[in-house]
Amino acid sequence: MRIAIDAMGGDNAPKEIVAGAMRAISQMKDLHITLIGDENKIKPYLINDKNITIIHTDEVITGEDEPVRAVRRKKNASLVLMAKEVKEKRADACISAGNTGALMSAGLFGVGRTPGIDRPALSPTLPTIDGKGFLLLDVGANVDAKAHHLIQYAIMGSIYTEKVRSIPNPTVGLLNVGTEDGKGNDLTKKAFTQLKNAPIHFIGNVEARDLLSGAADVVVTDGFSGNIALKTIEGTAMTVFSMLKKTFTSSVKTKIAAGLAKKDLKELSSKLDYSEYGGAGLFGLAAPVIKAHGSSKGRAIFNAIKQACHMVEYNVTETIESTVLSIDLDKEGY
Amino acid sequence: MRIAIDAMGGDNAPKEIVAGAMRAISQMKDLHITLIGDENKIKPYLINDKNITIIHTDEVITGEDEPVRAVRRKKNASLVLMAKEVKEKRADACISAGNTGALMSAGLFGVGRTPGIDRPALSPTLPTIDGKGFLLLDVGANVDAKAHHLIQYAIMGSIYTEKVRSIPNPTVGLLNVGTEDGKGNDLTKKAFTQLKNAPIHFIGNVEARDLLSGAADVVVTDGFSGNIALKTIEGTAMTVFSMLKKTFTSSVKTKIAAGLAKKDLKELSSKLDYSEYGGAGLFGLAAPVIKAHGSSKGRAIFNAIKQACHMVEYNVTETIESTVLSIDLDKEGY
Repeated sequence: MRIAIDAMGGDNAPKEIVAGAMRAISQMKDLHITLIGDENKIKPYLINDKNITIIHTDEVITGEDEPVRAVRRKKNASLVLMAKEVKEKRADACISAGNTGALMSAGLFGVGRTPGIDRPALSPTLPTIDGKGFLLLDVGANVDAKAHHLIQYAIMGSIYTEKVRSIPNPTVGLLNVGTEDGKGNDLTKKAFTQLKNAPIHFIGNVEARDLLSGAADVVVTDGFSGNIALKTIEGTAMTVFSMLKKTFTSSVKTKIAAGLAKKDLKELSSKLDYSEYGGAGLFGLAAPVIKAHGSSKGRAIFNAIKQACHMVEYNVTETIESTVLSIDLDKEGY
Repeated sequence: MRIAIDAMGGDNAPKEIVAGAMRAISQMKDLHITLIGDENKIKPYLINDKNITIIHTDEVITGEDEPVRAVRRKKNASLVLMAKEVKEKRADACISAGNTGALMSAGLFGVGRTPGIDRPALSPTLPTIDGKGFLLLDVGANVDAKAHHLIQYAIMGSIYTEKVRSIPNPTVGLLNVGTEDGKGNDLTKKAFTQLKNAPIHFIGNVEARDLLSGAADVVVTDGFSGNIALKTIEGTAMTVFSMLKKTFTSSVKTKIAAGLAKKDLKELSSKLDYSEYGGAGLFGLAAPVIKAHGSSKGRAIFNAIKQACHMVEYNVTETIESTVLSIDLDKEGY
């Protein structure tokens, strides 16, 4: 298994990226990692170089760069060289915690699409109250989605969830403004009909209110609404926790309370930490491309590496391709 | 001031609806309330009948009724008779905590649109971390919005926020997938350009992550995305609070902590309770129509009555009409 990693992407690069790679190498057999980035900045964190290759470059795409332009112009950026490793078959999959738009662009133009998939989908696994988690796609790769894109998302999400998350026959829901059949805008009404015919376990519409209660194992939506849902979850959780923190430091009494419940409150916030599930897959590309969260620590990178390895091992890309190509979009009412 | 209220709508009707009306009558001068519903069920909660009229009906639209059909067939339902009071000028505004879809339908076909407004918008005020709150519209009245609808939402939201919420020159943001100019889907890109020319204080794109931090006083979006944002906020806050409750009842230690912080935690959750801001206005109708939350208690109904009175008093509907009619959609690049 050969994984290429952008060592310079994310808030904690390269330190935490290298830490995650070190942990993966020490725990996983037959793994080779290629770290791409500034060798002088990477080396101090390298405990040993067993099964590690460094490709040196001092060009970096930052969070402020305009994605498409940056990928086109910064031809030696760590993220661009990472995608090249996959394209030229020197790596089986790749991971970056850097600029999301640039990764999508490098993925699309560098790695290329899976035959049969029109548009890739950015697909994070988010926490649920029961700890099972659910896959939400798309959260922003394609903000003007058509109904047949949503069908492809449903198929990709089901295959990933069954193979990598080991959930047999995963339920698929369509994010909508109500749970009843016939609800929604033009897009979801059309997608609803088509999802009923798709080779997935479609359970109908799900409401945003029920996402974290685990309404479905896979929730499909257009990239605009998915982005709104994802960022609203993040923003609301962050707001409640920051208010909680303020509450617990407001008086001596509440400070004592915080001391007593500290361990339990930490457990609670870790339940909502979705780095445990790895990064967001950019599904629909010719090889696994993983977007790790910008704030990833070593553990999140380690989980993203495990996730990428599982995607390769269980032939997720190949299964998506053969499944999508086996259904006839014209004939079967898509 | 004459307000018509659907006494049978919502989870706590008619008890809490009548309680809210009683409180309003006792505190507000020159207020007359018409309660519409089952007289036998209303009367036990009526402390006195000063400035109260009851219109008896035993027909009710429930939460399970299909909205449009219910409004058409149940001609004597409390919600339908309520809209009729406004239409036939016996009331200046109306309030229901019942079926949202049915209220939108009764509002549109019973009360009618404001001249110049193409589509009404459901517009709740939501809490922010600083306690100021913000108006989000539309959250589901129009799930297939066009760019010029969003411009009308921005104008309606600004006028309401300035007049009723007393925020001078309120900031207006466009809900989008990124804050930079040029971000978004076809709809938001088009709306962005038009919002820059509109007679409002437009501050650009806002992200869903920043909604509760108070990114703008008024946030405009299409009804589909707005519904997703609203329900995601509700669902996430509910999930975090239910996890908190579980955490604080999990051991003797955490139970003691909960006891110490009880008052402060209650204050925190009341900060997120948006009934303080009244109900969601159905803006763009010929008179103020307020949708109170289904779980409204007396206090929420009282606040919705105050809100409706302010909308009448400050001529919100008339100002919307004259503002929208004064701008030339064809000439000014809308």
